[in-house]
Amino acid sequence: MSFLDHIKRCNNARLDEFEPWFIGAERAGFLHRDFAPVVAARTKLFTRRAAAWHLDPALATPDKRTAAVRGFLLELRADGYFKGLWREEAYPVSWEFTRAPLMAMERAAVPWFGVRAFGPHMTGYVRRQDGLHIWVPRRSYSKPTFPGQLDNTVAGGQPAGIGLHDNLIKECAEEAAIPQALAVQAKAVSFVSYLNQSDMQLKPDLMTCFDLELPEDFTPYANDGEVDSFELWPVRRVFETVRDTTEFKYNCNLVLIDFFVRHGLLSADDPQFAAIVSGLKMMYTLPNGIG
Amino acid sequence: MSFLDHIKRCNNARLDEFEPWFIGAERAGFLHRDFAPVVAARTKLFTRRAAAWHLDPALATPDKRTAAVRGFLLELRADGYFKGLWREEAYPVSWEFTRAPLMAMERAAVPWFGVRAFGPHMTGYVRRQDGLHIWVPRRSYSKPTFPGQLDNTVAGGQPAGIGLHDNLIKECAEEAAIPQALAVQAKAVSFVSYLNQSDMQLKPDLMTCFDLELPEDFTPYANDGEVDSFELWPVRRVFETVRDTTEFKYNCNLVLIDFFVRHGLLSADDPQFAAIVSGLKMMYTLPNGIG
Repeated sequence: MSFLDHIKRCNNARLDEFEPWFIGAERAGFLHRDFAPVVAARTKLFTRRAAAWHLDPALATPDKRTAAVRGFLLELRADGYFKGLWREEAYPVSWEFTRAPLMAMERAAVPWFGVRAFGPHMTGYVRRQDGLHIWVPRRSYSKPTFPGQLDNTVAGGQPAGIGLHDNLIKECAEEAAIPQALAVQAKAVSFVSYLNQSDMQLKPDLMTCFDLELPEDFTPYANDGEVDSFELWPVRRVFETVRDTTEFKYNCNLVLIDFFVRHGLLSADDPQFAAIVSGLKMMYTLPNGIG
Repeated sequence: MSFLDHIKRCNNARLDEFEPWFIGAERAGFLHRDFAPVVAARTKLFTRRAAAWHLDPALATPDKRTAAVRGFLLELRADGYFKGLWREEAYPVSWEFTRAPLMAMERAAVPWFGVRAFGPHMTGYVRRQDGLHIWVPRRSYSKPTFPGQLDNTVAGGQPAGIGLHDNLIKECAEEAAIPQALAVQAKAVSFVSYLNQSDMQLKPDLMTCFDLELPEDFTPYANDGEVDSFELWPVRRVFETVRDTTEFKYNCNLVLIDFFVRHGLLSADDPQFAAIVSGLKMMYTLPNGIG
């Protein structure tokens, strides 16, 4: 592995297998060519024209869209889609998190509709006498996704109806027992974005990177069963583990590479410097020119 | 002004007025539709096919290309092009700085041929008891470009044949009397890129951002006449001056906005957060699809 290999691994999507779908004039997501017919054959929700899918314009409000699509998603679930991942957690449907959502959608369905997910990913670090250290959690072995893999110090998906920083403060408490007085000091310092494909599912996600400097005498611990254990690693060990292995959950590598860049661990004259820095923020231009 | 206004101001290029030019299979730069005929009418250096220009393939080595193009540039200079800006300073012609240059080109001609320029732009800052401060220079009133405007602490163009960090160390000594022992501690932490047009000239430049924490008892001073004066400003004053005015040289605003983001001065829930962060690294897709 190398840093660029992680970027490629996160950006494995074959975009020519997808077509965009729209709510009115706004692109809401992408449908895989093998999933779109499944949708189209079973509902009147989507119609296709000019190489794109359009949600029924009669669904004129976010609430109406949410309810109509939910009915269909429940049918899909009854037919065995989404496996054990259905969570009754509403994600906003919006290409930009700060815009008013076009509708809400159950989290488990989001990658099937190529809807962009958002979320805070925080690196908790400690400046010790002997150098920078990072708190590294291992995901619980009983988590449904990526069990036992290494993770960012605190990270979470972004539900509808709460701000990114407030959501991070909540996740800090739940996942790492970081008290609010510390968590409010976390700073949004970057984002990473990528286009990750898994069969018919597409994650064109954008994760906001936060840094939080933690005091030496603070030790995070798993508060909600999502984390198996925390360890404080010298930044060089994190650097080498990211660079040389796939021990971290795939997208967490990008957040850590962004941290390494911002904290000056790469050289300006590294032949890959610009490719790494730009690769962390992948753009979204489809073969059909819809960007 | 706002941060996004600065990004728009730096990215004012009307790309449909340009066509790319190639050396072999590699895109070297862009020619404006009003400048390309001037070139084509007076030399056999460039020929046009399929909406692109191609340097004479008989010029098979970088040295041959450099010499042949230089002959033409000297003619243009004799005819009044480049005004007082000719510096006898060779810039590398390459879309990626870390690749071997395709040829070298006099700095003054580079934007006429839409060749990407590179360079280090450093923010020198001080962590004082009362908060972060930035050393802000005012450009000499006798400089041929942007006289009297505010600038990044140290910044320079990138000539051929020297690394970015070594060039920065040299510029630190020349422009701000920062000793080598301090300058080597500067860290490459990001880049900004943009597509800036001025009539027939295009700057599709990429500047590497460096941070250097300076000790409280160090004071930079102008060593080579390029800087009129240095002042140490609280970061909030720099933030507001960038946000609200055009006092800084146009591209220096982007370097400072990148600094503000990385140092946590923006909120994750700022509706413009993602647009600002992605806008600092502009992509290069031409209307003809050549990206």
